[in-house]
Amino acid sequence: MDLSMTETVNLSIVRYDSATGLVPVVVQDVDTGHVLTLAYADREAIKRTLATGETWFYSRSRQEYWHKGETSGNTQKVVDVRVDCDGDAVLYLVQPQGPACHTGETTCFFRRVTHAETTAAPNRARAMAADEGEGQT
Amino acid sequence: MDLSMTETVNLSIVRYDSATGLVPVVVQDVDTGHVLTLAYADREAIKRTLATGETWFYSRSRQEYWHKGETSGNTQKVVDVRVDCDGDAVLYLVQPQGPACHTGETTCFFRRVTHAETTAAPNRARAMAADEGEGQT
Repeated sequence: MDLSMTETVNLSIVRYDSATGLVPVVVQDVDTGHVLTLAYADREAIKRTLATGETWFYSRSRQEYWHKGETSGNTQKVVDVRVDCDGDAVLYLVQPQGPACHTGETTCFFRRVTHAETTAAPNRARAMAADEGEGQT
Repeated sequence: MDLSMTETVNLSIVRYDSATGLVPVVVQDVDTGHVLTLAYADREAIKRTLATGETWFYSRSRQEYWHKGETSGNTQKVVDVRVDCDGDAVLYLVQPQGPACHTGETTCFFRRVTHAETTAAPNRARAMAADEGEGQT
């Protein structure tokens, strides 16, 4: 995959959520292009990732650091770490040593979403945009 | 890009953050494989995306729906919408009509992250893991 990269910045540019102290991390297979997982990290997890060359996260459910593959053996070799334009999202580009998903699938994003009420027709969208009662916030 | 997809599910499977009502959305160029943007959506934004075939989000800063490209013309044609294994992250696979980033870059993830203290050496990582004073939470 062609890697469109133009600038190098320091880790200090990353902005963590003020409530949780975490930043979302997209994990992508640098060879196949598959988006594998969305997880979360704090500054320490990103530092460990940069230092070890393997992916580290912070598990929101277990409230602890999570070294991907430590138990399963399915580690992810880190080729590059990116941050987005406004600093509040991170991208790990990796070479996975096995499936990313705990289900055994290559990627966690193996399910397509559909919705009975929605078919790709612009007039339907305009009708929904006017339907204030439907919105969830 | 090969699309590893095995199942079709209804929109109702998506789980929104209990505090914000939002789910993170990864936007990926289906042709180049580039991860373009990480944004957020609620159920209504995903419904509009499915209905119109263009990307809709919910802007956390502006607190309003955001139809990508409405002002710039850089819309994103949606090829597929995915949800991850535990339902709390969404992936839009798109064909962009122009740059994804407001800076004019193709992708928002154009910056590589480095950190002076970290070089890919496992012994360094072990030293840091023991350094409790450094962690941010």
